[in-house]
Amino acid sequence: MQKEIIKLKRAPSIISSYSVVGKKENDGPLGDYFDEYSDDNKFGMDTWEKAEGEMQKRAVMGAMKKANLSDTGVDVLLSGDLLNQCVGSNYGLLDFNIPYVGLYGACSTCAEGLALASCLYSGGDFDVCGTVTSSHFCSSERQFRFPLEYGGQRTPTAQWTVTGSGAYILGEGGKVKITEVMLGKTVDMGITDINNMGAAMAPACIDTIKRYFKASELSPSDFDLIATGDLGYEGSEILIDLLFKDGIDIRKNHNDCGLMIFDRKTQDVHAGGSGCGCSSVVLSCDILKKLEGGVYKNVLFIGTGALMSPMTLFQGMSIPGVAHLIRLER
Amino acid sequence: MQKEIIKLKRAPSIISSYSVVGKKENDGPLGDYFDEYSDDNKFGMDTWEKAEGEMQKRAVMGAMKKANLSDTGVDVLLSGDLLNQCVGSNYGLLDFNIPYVGLYGACSTCAEGLALASCLYSGGDFDVCGTVTSSHFCSSERQFRFPLEYGGQRTPTAQWTVTGSGAYILGEGGKVKITEVMLGKTVDMGITDINNMGAAMAPACIDTIKRYFKASELSPSDFDLIATGDLGYEGSEILIDLLFKDGIDIRKNHNDCGLMIFDRKTQDVHAGGSGCGCSSVVLSCDILKKLEGGVYKNVLFIGTGALMSPMTLFQGMSIPGVAHLIRLER
Repeated sequence: MQKEIIKLKRAPSIISSYSVVGKKENDGPLGDYFDEYSDDNKFGMDTWEKAEGEMQKRAVMGAMKKANLSDTGVDVLLSGDLLNQCVGSNYGLLDFNIPYVGLYGACSTCAEGLALASCLYSGGDFDVCGTVTSSHFCSSERQFRFPLEYGGQRTPTAQWTVTGSGAYILGEGGKVKITEVMLGKTVDMGITDINNMGAAMAPACIDTIKRYFKASELSPSDFDLIATGDLGYEGSEILIDLLFKDGIDIRKNHNDCGLMIFDRKTQDVHAGGSGCGCSSVVLSCDILKKLEGGVYKNVLFIGTGALMSPMTLFQGMSIPGVAHLIRLER
Repeated sequence: MQKEIIKLKRAPSIISSYSVVGKKENDGPLGDYFDEYSDDNKFGMDTWEKAEGEMQKRAVMGAMKKANLSDTGVDVLLSGDLLNQCVGSNYGLLDFNIPYVGLYGACSTCAEGLALASCLYSGGDFDVCGTVTSSHFCSSERQFRFPLEYGGQRTPTAQWTVTGSGAYILGEGGKVKITEVMLGKTVDMGITDINNMGAAMAPACIDTIKRYFKASELSPSDFDLIATGDLGYEGSEILIDLLFKDGIDIRKNHNDCGLMIFDRKTQDVHAGGSGCGCSSVVLSCDILKKLEGGVYKNVLFIGTGALMSPMTLFQGMSIPGVAHLIRLER
């Protein structure tokens, strides 16, 4: 029988993490907590795509330095981003002499990487696993929507792709462990609006959360935080409402990485943040620190991805979503 | 210390596999051995991208049917393709009620999926793992090179993207086991010609093979076949020559999936086949059958990927390669 929850036999801890962000993210409510930021959104490079690679490189280097590890100490790097052919990862990680596994899960990639890395570690064949994801507002807008120079007006349901990268090193010795994993299934409820990713992702997130609570026989009140990333305002409302109708009340302890990273009143981001850099930097700079500090003891982190593509949308297809879950415990 | 070879504690067997190809592939030397083909390269769909998804769907359904499994019997599907945002996989696998993990490794994705699935199975948290990849000549040409309608002339070093999809179910009970895994590292030797992927991939393949023979203390003569996929003529020559200079002679037992799938004399494919459908259907219809039949007992299968992107090439960057290795034993 298909396993719902993977209860990790050898649960890895998060030895270290490192977050790199752009100026707008640093100006937001979490600005004091990121490890590194750049006023220059090109991070010293000459294109946005190269900047995204540079962020990944800095994030991995930072996480390895915190863990006091060199290349030979890391068994594998699992990595992905939003760009076609995942070029942020391909080029950003070229300098590392570490086996490289490319992932694609849109905004769910951070959770996907953490989930896979946890399973690899749990199996015993890997002792130190790295995972990193990134996104960049400028490279994403150009690729998925319009050239920035066009100055297209953003719709109210549009999310703002976070410029950032978060890296994690999993192994032995950290305070916070990843104890359970539940991989997501693709769900497509017919959303075709490329500017409403929250609505496209929410059904997959609902599917994963419902499956989790059913299989675990736990309830939302067993967790200090149920963090999704990144449904934004639109998707979070849908998630909370539809789960409530199904008897699962997450109103008190839900938050979304896309809501946490920007101040909606002052930062003009419409429906909140998104991108696989968003959940990865928010988990690193905020949720993980609160777990390490004892503020939280038990957290569900659910990465949500809108598997949208301009090509398939032009062909009249809707946007499937996927949501991977990990459970973090101190 | 970073592990070179992952010697799987619980080695999975390949319970079943299934190959779906287009007309040109079926007209080639392996035409009698594929499980399914279509004279219509759209596989009944109205676009090439949807056709690629349809191939993946048929491949997974075929492999599950052979293994006598329904959705609830499969713990996870690891999947990828060459299309932006991996839409072949995202849409092709929507109908399955199976957890979905998206991969991106260009033409190495078949080996990447088999390697990861093997590690997940070995760990004991997963009992039945599926993996599937695909590529399509028409969708690839449009995305990576020119619209087909343009009728661009192909250069002698260009490879022909295979229209095909291969799916595998890993678990207990098959005749052939995956006993070892070695994940590849990205290597970039400065190749910038989008029509010479063989040369871009060969250095990564050399790196993986050299690391494997060094760490295993085995030699090429210990294997019945060293199969790469897909270096084509250009890349295979580079691989053989440079390994020979380093004292590793694979001339007698090397073959490349890109060379096996087409007849160079009659099929006008220039440097051979490519695409992450190529190695996956050749492994399924030929190499695996010969292992199951006892013709081979011990095979190295090395998936090679050119992590190229039109966007980064326009920006003057070169093409990194990656090569993942698995060892198959009867």
